[in-house]
Amino acid sequence: MSTPAPSGIVTLLTDFGLSDPFVGVMTGVLLRGHPTARIVDLCHGIEPQATTEAAFWVQRCYPWFPEGTVHLIVVDPAVGTGRALLAARLQGHYFVAPDAGLLPDAVASGAAGDVRAIDCEALGLASGSATFHGRDRMAPVAALLSSGRKRLEQLGPPIEPAPCALPLAARLPSGDVRGEIVTIDRFGNLMTNLEAEHLAAARRVQLGERSIPVVRTYADAGPGGLVALINSFGVLEIARRDGSAAEALGAGRGAVVEVTA
Amino acid sequence: MSTPAPSGIVTLLTDFGLSDPFVGVMTGVLLRGHPTARIVDLCHGIEPQATTEAAFWVQRCYPWFPEGTVHLIVVDPAVGTGRALLAARLQGHYFVAPDAGLLPDAVASGAAGDVRAIDCEALGLASGSATFHGRDRMAPVAALLSSGRKRLEQLGPPIEPAPCALPLAARLPSGDVRGEIVTIDRFGNLMTNLEAEHLAAARRVQLGERSIPVVRTYADAGPGGLVALINSFGVLEIARRDGSAAEALGAGRGAVVEVTA
Amino acid sequence: MSTPAPSGIVTLLTDFGLSDPFVGVMTGVLLRGHPTARIVDLCHGIEPQATTEAAFWVQRCYPWFPEGTVHLIVVDPAVGTGRALLAARLQGHYFVAPDAGLLPDAVASGAAGDVRAIDCEALGLASGSATFHGRDRMAPVAALLSSGRKRLEQLGPPIEPAPCALPLAARLPSGDVRGEIVTIDRFGNLMTNLEAEHLAAARRVQLGERSIPVVRTYADAGPGGLVALINSFGVLEIARRDGSAAEALGAGRGAVVEVTA
Repeated sequence: MSTPAPSGIVTLLTDFGLSDPFVGVMTGVLLRGHPTARIVDLCHGIEPQATTEAAFWVQRCYPWFPEGTVHLIVVDPAVGTGRALLAARLQGHYFVAPDAGLLPDAVASGAAGDVRAIDCEALGLASGSATFHGRDRMAPVAALLSSGRKRLEQLGPPIEPAPCALPLAARLPSGDVRGEIVTIDRFGNLMTNLEAEHLAAARRVQLGERSIPVVRTYADAGPGGLVALINSFGVLEIARRDGSAAEALGAGRGAVVEVTA
Repeated sequence: MSTPAPSGIVTLLTDFGLSDPFVGVMTGVLLRGHPTARIVDLCHGIEPQATTEAAFWVQRCYPWFPEGTVHLIVVDPAVGTGRALLAARLQGHYFVAPDAGLLPDAVASGAAGDVRAIDCEALGLASGSATFHGRDRMAPVAALLSSGRKRLEQLGPPIEPAPCALPLAARLPSGDVRGEIVTIDRFGNLMTNLEAEHLAAARRVQLGERSIPVVRTYADAGPGGLVALINSFGVLEIARRDGSAAEALGAGRGAVVEVTA
Repeated sequence: MSTPAPSGIVTLLTDFGLSDPFVGVMTGVLLRGHPTARIVDLCHGIEPQATTEAAFWVQRCYPWFPEGTVHLIVVDPAVGTGRALLAARLQGHYFVAPDAGLLPDAVASGAAGDVRAIDCEALGLASGSATFHGRDRMAPVAALLSSGRKRLEQLGPPIEPAPCALPLAARLPSGDVRGEIVTIDRFGNLMTNLEAEHLAAARRVQLGERSIPVVRTYADAGPGGLVALINSFGVLEIARRDGSAAEALGAGRGAVVEVTA
């Protein structure tokens, strides 16, 4: 597998929100390390410490960026403990993140790519704060990678990362498939870990007591109607026309969604 | 009328909010199509599907950017239906948006400029998702325009766009002028579609039962006082000193504001 | 003291929030004045008119950016009155802000640096709106500085700025030190104006009736436990493991935190 040249783009995905300057100072650190970096705020609205939600969005979003992009992911419930920090390469993209199941499946499974444990001592990054490794350790490493000043192999030894925090949908003995809601968007749409292959020819899905018809696009729903569809990120989504499915159904992250065979 | 060279700047105005990575992946698509684009998040806080509010801000904001800027506007209640996607040029600026009344008045009225129906088939953009045309159709077209790889005339045939979603203030037979609240800002200030010419020499405006004095600037109000003024975007705004006019008045978008002759 | 060359970076810190396009149009104005500027949204979540919170974050954030960066700060309770607009240089950084106690201490105290009252008349900036000086006066000045078209000394005469809005912690006759909460972050962590030197060897701090143990990092707290630590910005922070200290304690900005000798 060839090694992609850095694109000079760095994306940021965190659970920091935007009400404080945490993302801003990480951007400052990136610019100090790589003055011509192009920095993209991919998303800072991940629920605090929600590694499942973060892993979902990382997996669904990174392919939309140019090859050679560095994706810096900071959702770090174990900051200040001994958990490793990872730098990885997968399918032409680079990733920097704590070892909390955030990287795309193919990296986590070791099927392809190269995952390294960042050696902060060797890189001179061990002296920063105990509570903001995103700024003091991961952003400097992302700048090293995106600027081309270090190659992945120079950042630390290979490591087997923690398993991906995003659960796989399960095929039951009955032939049914059981998934769950992994994120809820601004519009109250419920996104799941079910994909088109799980849906097969099914015309309805089940969420608690509710049976919901499968359609092609939002406009196929009647006014206020609930529908399920394969959304633009390739997963089953439950939506309500001109309203919030989350509100109408009272369903949150982790709720079970089933496809009956 | 001369054709402005692209400035390389693309602004984004959407109703996507910032809690999900929708804006982030659109940015990735823009960078894949135009790697040196300068991308500005103009606003992502438009109320879901609020085309009136979006049209207001588009009209009031685009002149603050350099000529040749591409303004990508994604408020798209009819995504997945047959509504057209537009690319337009007006007063030295470019616009890409669904045909939902979002473009500045002068385009909508055909008074000046050039509006095209994007031919997604011809451009190879027809195969994407049914639910996220902002990412799969409009962002690629914005990148074509801003990078100079296509000229407006190459994007599709001329079209008469839908009328502007922003209502005009009405002059009544009595001589009074009737407008409405079109957006409410973070501070609770109520912005209307009334302009200085509607106000003329009037010293008060009427919102429901309340008569509100017209002043020059916020500091002209007493503590906690309600005032009306022509704001920095050239429209009549109702504000409360050191507080929220929206809260004090219980008034929302669509509420009538009148100027008595 | 040497004069730093502009880095071409402009940071923005405001109380505008992101629900409206106020930040977006300021960015447009910056790009019109300095087309190659690199613009960083440091933070727009300052509470409306909270000059104390803004001064805290300015002081704690600017050193994370490259030397020669221009920091544009718009928290402007007195917009439209006669308050001065400042341009300043401190420790290799530039600042543009209203004279509302927003600049770092060392500027405010005159210990180092150079503070100027922007002469809007002479610069041709006096004709804009009465209510949005961030866009009409301060952004154009930031663009002049960051592009190198004007040097600080060309922007106006020296001025003694208003005192810093951020209160200093007080050492009491008893030897105790009294500080206060100056900001609350997304996670409900309470940040104070107390620093490591105030804490000395103290093992607990007092917030109202509660005595809270001092630890090194979040992970040192038991599940749900309240702790105090010197955070990554160098100040005493009260945090709750896996939860919100603000919620658990019902404490807000301005609440007193004491270190007993």
